Amino acid sequence: MSEPNMPLLSDKTRSLLELASTPTIATLLFKHGFRNAYIQGVSALNPTDRKLVGLAFTLRYIMAREDTDQLSAFCEPDHPQRLAVETCPEGHVLVMDCREDASAASAGSILLTRLQVRGVAGCVTDGGIRDAEGACQLEMPIFTAKPSAPTNLTKHHAVDMNVPISCGGVPVYPGDIIVGDIDGVMVIPAHMAEQIAEEAEPMEEYETFVLEEVKRGVPIIGLYPATDPDSLERFEFWKAQRNQQ
Amino acid sequence: MSEPNMPLLSDKTRSLLELASTPTIATLLFKHGFRNAYIQGVSALNPTDRKLVGLAFTLRYIMAREDTDQLSAFCEPDHPQRLAVETCPEGHVLVMDCREDASAASAGSILLTRLQVRGVAGCVTDGGIRDAEGACQLEMPIFTAKPSAPTNLTKHHAVDMNVPISCGGVPVYPGDIIVGDIDGVMVIPAHMAEQIAEEAEPMEEYETFVLEEVKRGVPIIGLYPATDPDSLERFEFWKAQRNQQ
Amino acid sequence: MSEPNMPLLSDKTRSLLELASTPTIATLLFKHGFRNAYIQGVSALNPTDRKLVGLAFTLRYIMAREDTDQLSAFCEPDHPQRLAVETCPEGHVLVMDCREDASAASAGSILLTRLQVRGVAGCVTDGGIRDAEGACQLEMPIFTAKPSAPTNLTKHHAVDMNVPISCGGVPVYPGDIIVGDIDGVMVIPAHMAEQIAEEAEPMEEYETFVLEEVKRGVPIIGLYPATDPDSLERFEFWKAQRNQQ
Amino acid sequence: MSEPNMPLLSDKTRSLLELASTPTIATLLFKHGFRNAYIQGVSALNPTDRKLVGLAFTLRYIMAREDTDQLSAFCEPDHPQRLAVETCPEGHVLVMDCREDASAASAGSILLTRLQVRGVAGCVTDGGIRDAEGACQLEMPIFTAKPSAPTNLTKHHAVDMNVPISCGGVPVYPGDIIVGDIDGVMVIPAHMAEQIAEEAEPMEEYETFVLEEVKRGVPIIGLYPATDPDSLERFEFWKAQRNQQ
Amino acid sequence: MSEPNMPLLSDKTRSLLELASTPTIATLLFKHGFRNAYIQGVSALNPTDRKLVGLAFTLRYIMAREDTDQLSAFCEPDHPQRLAVETCPEGHVLVMDCREDASAASAGSILLTRLQVRGVAGCVTDGGIRDAEGACQLEMPIFTAKPSAPTNLTKHHAVDMNVPISCGGVPVYPGDIIVGDIDGVMVIPAHMAEQIAEEAEPMEEYETFVLEEVKRGVPIIGLYPATDPDSLERFEFWKAQRNQQ
Amino acid sequence: MSEPNMPLLSDKTRSLLELASTPTIATLLFKHGFRNAYIQGVSALNPTDRKLVGLAFTLRYIMAREDTDQLSAFCEPDHPQRLAVETCPEGHVLVMDCREDASAASAGSILLTRLQVRGVAGCVTDGGIRDAEGACQLEMPIFTAKPSAPTNLTKHHAVDMNVPISCGGVPVYPGDIIVGDIDGVMVIPAHMAEQIAEEAEPMEEYETFVLEEVKRGVPIIGLYPATDPDSLERFEFWKAQRNQQ
Repeated sequence: MSEPNMPLLSDKTRSLLELASTPTIATLLFKHGFRNAYIQGVSALNPTDRKLVGLAFTLRYIMAREDTDQLSAFCEPDHPQRLAVETCPEGHVLVMDCREDASAASAGSILLTRLQVRGVAGCVTDGGIRDAEGACQLEMPIFTAKPSAPTNLTKHHAVDMNVPISCGGVPVYPGDIIVGDIDGVMVIPAHMAEQIAEEAEPMEEYETFVLEEVKRGVPIIGLYPATDPDSLERFEFWKAQRNQQ
Repeated sequence: MSEPNMPLLSDKTRSLLELASTPTIATLLFKHGFRNAYIQGVSALNPTDRKLVGLAFTLRYIMAREDTDQLSAFCEPDHPQRLAVETCPEGHVLVMDCREDASAASAGSILLTRLQVRGVAGCVTDGGIRDAEGACQLEMPIFTAKPSAPTNLTKHHAVDMNVPISCGGVPVYPGDIIVGDIDGVMVIPAHMAEQIAEEAEPMEEYETFVLEEVKRGVPIIGLYPATDPDSLERFEFWKAQRNQQ
Repeated sequence: MSEPNMPLLSDKTRSLLELASTPTIATLLFKHGFRNAYIQGVSALNPTDRKLVGLAFTLRYIMAREDTDQLSAFCEPDHPQRLAVETCPEGHVLVMDCREDASAASAGSILLTRLQVRGVAGCVTDGGIRDAEGACQLEMPIFTAKPSAPTNLTKHHAVDMNVPISCGGVPVYPGDIIVGDIDGVMVIPAHMAEQIAEEAEPMEEYETFVLEEVKRGVPIIGLYPATDPDSLERFEFWKAQRNQQ
Repeated sequence: MSEPNMPLLSDKTRSLLELASTPTIATLLFKHGFRNAYIQGVSALNPTDRKLVGLAFTLRYIMAREDTDQLSAFCEPDHPQRLAVETCPEGHVLVMDCREDASAASAGSILLTRLQVRGVAGCVTDGGIRDAEGACQLEMPIFTAKPSAPTNLTKHHAVDMNVPISCGGVPVYPGDIIVGDIDGVMVIPAHMAEQIAEEAEPMEEYETFVLEEVKRGVPIIGLYPATDPDSLERFEFWKAQRNQQ
Repeated sequence: MSEPNMPLLSDKTRSLLELASTPTIATLLFKHGFRNAYIQGVSALNPTDRKLVGLAFTLRYIMAREDTDQLSAFCEPDHPQRLAVETCPEGHVLVMDCREDASAASAGSILLTRLQVRGVAGCVTDGGIRDAEGACQLEMPIFTAKPSAPTNLTKHHAVDMNVPISCGGVPVYPGDIIVGDIDGVMVIPAHMAEQIAEEAEPMEEYETFVLEEVKRGVPIIGLYPATDPDSLERFEFWKAQRNQQ
Repeated sequence: MSEPNMPLLSDKTRSLLELASTPTIATLLFKHGFRNAYIQGVSALNPTDRKLVGLAFTLRYIMAREDTDQLSAFCEPDHPQRLAVETCPEGHVLVMDCREDASAASAGSILLTRLQVRGVAGCVTDGGIRDAEGACQLEMPIFTAKPSAPTNLTKHHAVDMNVPISCGGVPVYPGDIIVGDIDGVMVIPAHMAEQIAEEAEPMEEYETFVLEEVKRGVPIIGLYPATDPDSLERFEFWKAQRNQQ
C-alpha cells in the first residue's frame, strides 16, 4: 500500500504520537466527532517499554469449520495467517479480527517472534494469544483479550488480509494509525493522523502543567479546562520557565 | 459462481431439503462431524408458509464510523448493501454478517420487498430488521435476531459481498446451502448438500413412524433409535401399508 | 420417591396452586425470604390451556465431549435422557439443567410426546427444544429458553437424574413444586408448598377485587396494599356480594 | 414541568409523530447527529392498535436491599413507584430505569391498569412486567424486556421520579418525546420533536411511493435514495395523482 | 450530611474496619441477611498499602447524549463530575455509578490526584479509569472495572451527586461505609457499620488461629467452624499465649 | 478410585506433562478430535513455580437457597465442600463447578492451605476465590475466575463430589488429567493422557528448535509446520548437536 517515497506516517507524526497518551488521542478524536475509536476488551500483554505506534495491517478470521480447519491447514503455503506474518510491512501493526472471541488463540510466541524479527511494530488482537510466557519476553508490544491455549483452528479460520475489519468493536481500515499504551489501543483514521498528532502536543503539555498545579493544591474548576484566564497566564509562565531550563 | 448448465443445487436436492426439518439436518451434519452449523440467535420474523432453502449469497458489514457512515453513503451507486440487494441471484439466500449485533437494522421492508420481487429465496441476518410490519407481510422467509429501528449506518458499514463470513457464530461460504424453519437456520457446506438431502429422507420417514408409535403408547427405548429389531420390522410393515394407500 | 399412599402434593394444594399466578407465588415466597425462585430465561413454548403444576423430576446435563457424545450414545439402553423420559412419574414435571445454554436442544417433539402420553405434567428446560412445530401441538405445557435445532449431543451430555440441579439460576431439588404460566416458572421448595398454596388463595381474591376497583377509578394508594381500612371494608362487602351470586 | 397554556407537545407534532414509524424517526435523529436514541432490548408486550406517543415521565430504580425492600415498603404512602403511578400526567409515558435487569418485574397489571384509567399514554421499562396476561388486555401500549414474575422488591428499589435516567442504554430526560411501535421505542430529545415530526411526513410519503415502485419491479438504485432525478419526477407525478383521489 | 461533632464513622469503627478483610465483612453481612453487598466487577487498580475505608459520597452518571456531551460541557462551573471532585468530603469515598459500563472512563489521573490532595479516602467506579499509569502512582486506593482511554463524555453524563445509586450491582446510599482490599469492595449499610466492625475483630482473630492450626496439619472439620469444643479450648490457650507476648 | 498398585497417572506420563505447555496439549487434543478441552475464563491466581498436573477430583455446586445456605450449614460434619477438602487425594486436583459464576467465592485461603498441607496438587474453580492475599502465598497452583469476597453460601451450594461436572464450559470426569500454566488449564480425558504426553515431547522439542530458527531470521513458511524437508534436516542436525552437549 505504501510507496517508498511517500510514507503514510511521517517521522514527525510518528514522533508526536509516541508522546501522546491514548486518553489524549481519545479526547481529540471525540472532539472531531469520533466516539468509537477505542478497541474494547484488549490490554497490554507484555511489560515492554516500547509505545505501540504504526499503520494497521489487517488479518480477518471467520468462525472455523471442522473440515477446513484441521492441522494440515497450516501446511498450505498461502495460509492467510502465516502469510500475514510474513507480509505485514516493517513498522506496521498486525491487527486481527477474531470477532471478540478469545476462547482460542490468534497467534503464539513463534509467530509473534517472527513478527518482531521482521521489524513489525506490534500486534493487536481481539482474540487470545498463546505461549504467553514467551510472548511476555518480546520487546514488540502485544495487545490481546487474554492468554488462551487453544490453537486458532479451534475457532478462527484466517480468511483474508488487508481488508477493512472490526476489532474490539472498532472499524479498522488498512493504513489507519494504531496507538497503544497501558490504557489500551486507539485507532486513528488515516486522514486524521497528522491533525491529531499536532493537537496532542499542546494538550499533553497543558495536562502536565495541570497535574503539577493539582499536586500543589490548586482546585480543578477554572484550571481543567482552563476557563479561568488566570490558569492560562500561569501556564504561559510555567512554559517560559520550563524552556529556560 | 454458478454456471447455467451446472446448478449447484439440483432440483432433487432442493426438493429433498424442502421436506427436511432443520433438526434432522443438524443431526445429519453432526453425524458427519459438523457440530457448529446452526446459526445462533436468529428466528423467523414473518409467518410465511415457504420453507427457506437456497444457496448463500453473503454481505459483510464491519462496525460503522462517523465520517464514512452518513446518510449520503446510500447515494453512492456501488454501496455494497444496495448492490447486494440488486445482485443476489434468484433462488439464493442473502446472508448478512452483522457481528451478532442487533442494536441496529441490516435491512428494512423496502430492500426486503425488492429481494422478493427479484426472486431471492430469503434473507438471514444476525443483525436487526426494521419496518417489521411490512416485512411480516412478505412471502419470502426472513430470519433475524429481532426487529430494530435504527438505520444500519448507526452500527453496520457494508464492506464487501460474496466473501466468506460468520453469521450467528457459523462460517458461511458463498454457495453453502441455507435451510430455515421454525427451529432456526442450518448452514450445509456446499459439498455436503446432496448427501445430507438424501440421508434426510429416510430419517424423516422413520421419525414420522416413531411419532405415530409414541402417540399410541410405545416406549422410546428400543424404538428411537431402533435398537430393537422389532422396531424396524414394524417400520417396514408401516411403510408397506403406507405405500398401498 | 413418592409412595402411593402419601402423595407429596395433596389434591388440595395442587388445586390451589392451579389457581395461583406465578407473580402471586413469587411475592409469597419473597415474603418468606426466598428471593431467587423464578427460573430466569425460560418462557412458555406452546399455547396450551393447561397450567403447569407438578413435582420436579430432574435431569442433569454436563457439557458434551466429542468421544462420548456420538449418535451411538442414544443406543445405550440406560442413556440418562431416554431413561428420564421413561421414568419421570405421572403428574411430575421433567426439569432439565442445561447450564442455561440454549445453543442446542435438550429434547424434541418425539420425547415430549412420549412424556405427555405417559401422563407427565410438563417440561422445563433452560436449554433449547427442537421440533418446535410438533411441540407446539402438545397439551402438556413446555417451558424453554427457545427453539434450537441442534441435537443435545452437540452441547449437552445427560449424566444423571433426580439429583439437585440448577435451572435458570434457581436450585431445583427433586420433589420441589413447579408452577408455570405466561409469566414464567416458579420453584416452590417442597416444605413450603402447602403454606404458599393456602396463602395464595386470599391474595388472588384481594387482587381480583383491587383490579375491579382500579377499573372503576379508585387510586392504588391505600388500596394496594390495603393500608386504608376502608379498602378492607369494601373488600368484605365485595366478597359477601360475590358469595351470594 | 409543563404549564397548562404551553403544551410541550403540540397537537400537530403529536399527530405527525403518530404517523411516523420508529425507523423513520431513527433515521432523522441519525441525520441530526443522534446515533443512540433507540431503547435497546424492549419490545411491545400487548397487541394494541394504539401508537405510543407521549412525553416522558421517569421513574428511577436502584438495586434493592434486603432490609429496605420488604413487602411493607409498599405501605409507605410516598413509595416512589406507587406515587409515580398516581402522578404521571395524562398523555405522558411512564419510562422506568431498571438498569436493563428484567430478572424481576417493574410493574404488574394492577398498576398498568391504573395508569390506563388515569389517561397515561403508555409505559416503557427495561425491566420486566408481571401479570402479562392482564397487561396484554390493556389498550395502553406497554414496552418491556419480557414478562417476569418476581415482585420489583426482589431487584428494584424505586428511588426517585422525574429525574434524568438511562433506559435500555438511552438517556431519557423528563419531557423527551417517546414514540413506540412494532420496531421498538425511540426517544426524541424535547427540543428536536417539532423538527423531527415535520421532517418525518415527507420521508414517510416518499417511502410509501418507493414501496409501490419496488413492488412493480423498479430497482432500488437511483430510487432509494432518489439519486436519479427521474425518481423525483415520478414521485411528483405520483403525489399529484394521489391528491386528486 | 455529617455534622462536625457527630462523626458518622467513629474512630473506633474505622480502626476495626481497617483490620477486617472484605471476606470477613461479607460473611458478617451475610449472617445479618445481606447477600448482595459486594460490588461486582471492580478490582484494585493501584498497588497501594492503604486499606480503603470511608463513607460513601456518590456520583451518578446516565448515558451520554451527542448534543449535551461535548467537550464544552466541562467548562460549566457546576458540571457534576468536577463538582463532586471538589465537594467529596475528606475521609469519604467517591463512588460512581457508571451502569457497569467500562467502555469509557469515569475519571483520570488529574481528577484522582485532586481527590487525593483533598484528603478523600479513595475512589470506586464500575466504569473505567484513564491515565492508569498516573493513577497507579497514587497512594489513595482506586477500584475500577479496568483502564479505559475514552473520555467519560463518550458514554457517561454526570447528572447528580449524593443520591442513592447502584454500583456494580449493589445499592449504595450516601453515608454507607465502603471497605476495599485485594478481594474487592464491600458496602456496609450505615446502620450496620458499628456492629459489623465489632463482630469482625474476634472473627479475624479466630481465622488467624485457624490458619496457624491448618499450617501445622490440623484438619478443618471441627475446627472451621469450631464445632469441636476442643478447637475453642485450643483457641483460648492460643489467645492467652499470644497476649503474653 | 485409584488402587495402590495401578496408578492412573504414571510417573512417566506426569513427568512428560510437566514439560508440556498447555498450548501444545491443546493442539494435540485438537488433532485427536477434542476441540473443547480448555477451561474458559480461569487464570493462575498465585505466582508459583509449580506446574499444575494431576488427576481431577470434582466438587459440584448448585445455586444456593436462602433456607439451606445459612452459616450453620458449615457446621454439618458432612458438608460436601469441607468433606472434599479433606477427601481429595494427594496429588489430585480439586476441580469445582460453580456454573461459571464468580460473583461469590468457592474457597478461601484456609481451605486452600489445608489442601496444600494435605499434598493436593492444585485447585481449579470457575467461581471466585477469597482471601486472595493468603492464597497468593501458597505454592500449590490455584486457577480461578477472579478474587471474590462473598462466602460461597451466597451463591454456591456444595451438593456432591467426584461426579462428572462442567467447569469453564468443559466436561470434567473424575480421573481426567488436569494441566495448568500461564496460558490456562487443559482437561485431558483419562484414556488420552499417556498418548498426549508422549506426543508432546517431540512437539515441544521441535518448537524449541523453531523458536531458535525464527530468532536468527528464518521465515516460518516451510519451517512451521515443517513442510520444507530442509527444515527437518536442520532439526536433526540441531538435535544431534544438542545431544553432544
